Amino acid sequence: MSDLINRQWRLAARPQGLIEESDFEWVEEPVRSLEDGEVLVRNIYLSLDPANRGWVRETASYVEPVQIGDVMRGLTIGVVEESRNQLFSKGDIVSGTIGWQDYGISTGSDLRVVRPGTLPLTAYLGLFGMVGMTAYFGLLDVGKPRAGETLVISGAAGAVGSIVGQIGKIVGCRVVGLAGSDAKCSWLTDELGFDAAINYKTESVARKLHKHCPDGIDVIFENVGGEILDAEMMWINNFARIVICGLISGYNATEPVPGPSSFPLVLIRRARVEGFIVIDFVDRYVEAVEKLSEWYEEGRLKYRVDVYDGLETAPLNINRLFDGSHDGKLIIKVSDEP
Amino acid sequence: MSDLINRQWRLAARPQGLIEESDFEWVEEPVRSLEDGEVLVRNIYLSLDPANRGWVRETASYVEPVQIGDVMRGLTIGVVEESRNQLFSKGDIVSGTIGWQDYGISTGSDLRVVRPGTLPLTAYLGLFGMVGMTAYFGLLDVGKPRAGETLVISGAAGAVGSIVGQIGKIVGCRVVGLAGSDAKCSWLTDELGFDAAINYKTESVARKLHKHCPDGIDVIFENVGGEILDAEMMWINNFARIVICGLISGYNATEPVPGPSSFPLVLIRRARVEGFIVIDFVDRYVEAVEKLSEWYEEGRLKYRVDVYDGLETAPLNINRLFDGSHDGKLIIKVSDEP
Repeated sequence: MSDLINRQWRLAARPQGLIEESDFEWVEEPVRSLEDGEVLVRNIYLSLDPANRGWVRETASYVEPVQIGDVMRGLTIGVVEESRNQLFSKGDIVSGTIGWQDYGISTGSDLRVVRPGTLPLTAYLGLFGMVGMTAYFGLLDVGKPRAGETLVISGAAGAVGSIVGQIGKIVGCRVVGLAGSDAKCSWLTDELGFDAAINYKTESVARKLHKHCPDGIDVIFENVGGEILDAEMMWINNFARIVICGLISGYNATEPVPGPSSFPLVLIRRARVEGFIVIDFVDRYVEAVEKLSEWYEEGRLKYRVDVYDGLETAPLNINRLFDGSHDGKLIIKVSDEP
Repeated sequence: MSDLINRQWRLAARPQGLIEESDFEWVEEPVRSLEDGEVLVRNIYLSLDPANRGWVRETASYVEPVQIGDVMRGLTIGVVEESRNQLFSKGDIVSGTIGWQDYGISTGSDLRVVRPGTLPLTAYLGLFGMVGMTAYFGLLDVGKPRAGETLVISGAAGAVGSIVGQIGKIVGCRVVGLAGSDAKCSWLTDELGFDAAINYKTESVARKLHKHCPDGIDVIFENVGGEILDAEMMWINNFARIVICGLISGYNATEPVPGPSSFPLVLIRRARVEGFIVIDFVDRYVEAVEKLSEWYEEGRLKYRVDVYDGLETAPLNINRLFDGSHDGKLIIKVSDEP
């Protein structure tokens, strides 16, 4: 038993609608001693992602749900404080799934050593983390965009969407993004090189898509779903590909959400709608990191992180993903970098 | 000008809901003389297909809509009565798109000479026509079933569905079909070798699918859509393929039909939902005909045709596709075989 106290957010109740702080219980307990093969990690950064909402549902999604009483699951960057595992040394920076707590004990199987170069550590929860992998494989492997095609992205100013759009430009697509504020739209067009952006809160998405996609839509990278997807699907070309990366508009729904009423166009346009989960591409992460690094060093990829301070703020700040009140990759700073 | 009188059904109004006879106008007019390169075809059989309903909508689908005043479009088998085209001779049996009329004049570009062997001519509107091509390419190329997987087919007793199921058995799948009567269900299991059949009008589709698909569903061949698709999607496995061949439940809808509310499972299960239209495979019809012939001669494929007499009955009989009151491929006999 060490003197360290581990503060944790444990799941107390399954959220109905938006997550509330009362859905979690704040627990403080001593960190136990390590056994052979184990590693003690101190969390530095905690990633908050739309997928987290799915993990606290009762029904299994692509991973088992977090059980009531469990520490909330979350992707993290941390530092090894103590190691009884030959593969890890004190001081190593590791990415993993330590969750919503100060400290975690791991056998190492879920940890990956990060060798940060000139990049800030938060990049390993963004461009070089799950976010970048998701954008890379989702767009290139599932969406299969070709030069000259038109790519539309919902949630385009989000962590994944903003990278997808930039990769789309690299590939030679016309790229149109949907975002929730004029400031975000300006960022997409002025900073990231999108051809057009649509403020879905103030503009008619269907009409503006028609205007900005004069040759129709070939690839949709979908993060939102619902009415947004419906409006996009109206303009798909024959053999369009619709990459279902997220359906965030329904994540907090308490009633079943109808699917897209433009669904018959899947048939008429011979479209392919395909869901994907980035973990299926884990064997190829190295390829993605290499390519993303190359593009980043060439100045062709930009990203933003939005860091909030303090583990205690996680249950409240996670809702920023759903109301759009964040800019870039949403991260909680749990403790100081070494 | 010949002495022949051509009886025609011309589109008079765009149907609202189910097709009514008053949506068409019955016209009788003399057949004009041929010009060089033209062929006069007398229709023998007219195919009635769910896709016909889409062709009379105002909005273009995968083909241009039939215009008000035009002869109704339809797939046909006929005989060449007169030819001023070197590629066709009097007496040739041809398949084409002559439409809802006694006679049609064609440049030949849409005609294909049929060399009937021992099969009845109606087979060329069924197993060896668009129906067989649709089943073959839709299942094998889009659905990509593997031996041991579970295949579920809606509209399974229909012309396409019944062939899909039999090909599924040939490929080594567990095959479960949905149909609208106990008699149809018995036909599927007792005659065609389906592993199970569900009467969607009297049984709980979701519950029965769960029972009959103990290992989940890997491929859905969808002809129906709506609530049926929703129930099927509940049980899809990871990497399931959902072939959208038809969405007949919505074809007569006068209001937008919501998409499947199980849609989020596309993401969670990394499913692929893909629409297809058989004409995209036209270059490979020969391959399909060869394979289907082989299986048919081996006794591994059976099919049924349901022939109604008289061109004048077409507007009424087409609704049999939507109320299920037909058995097998729905065909109108327009005139006698030579």
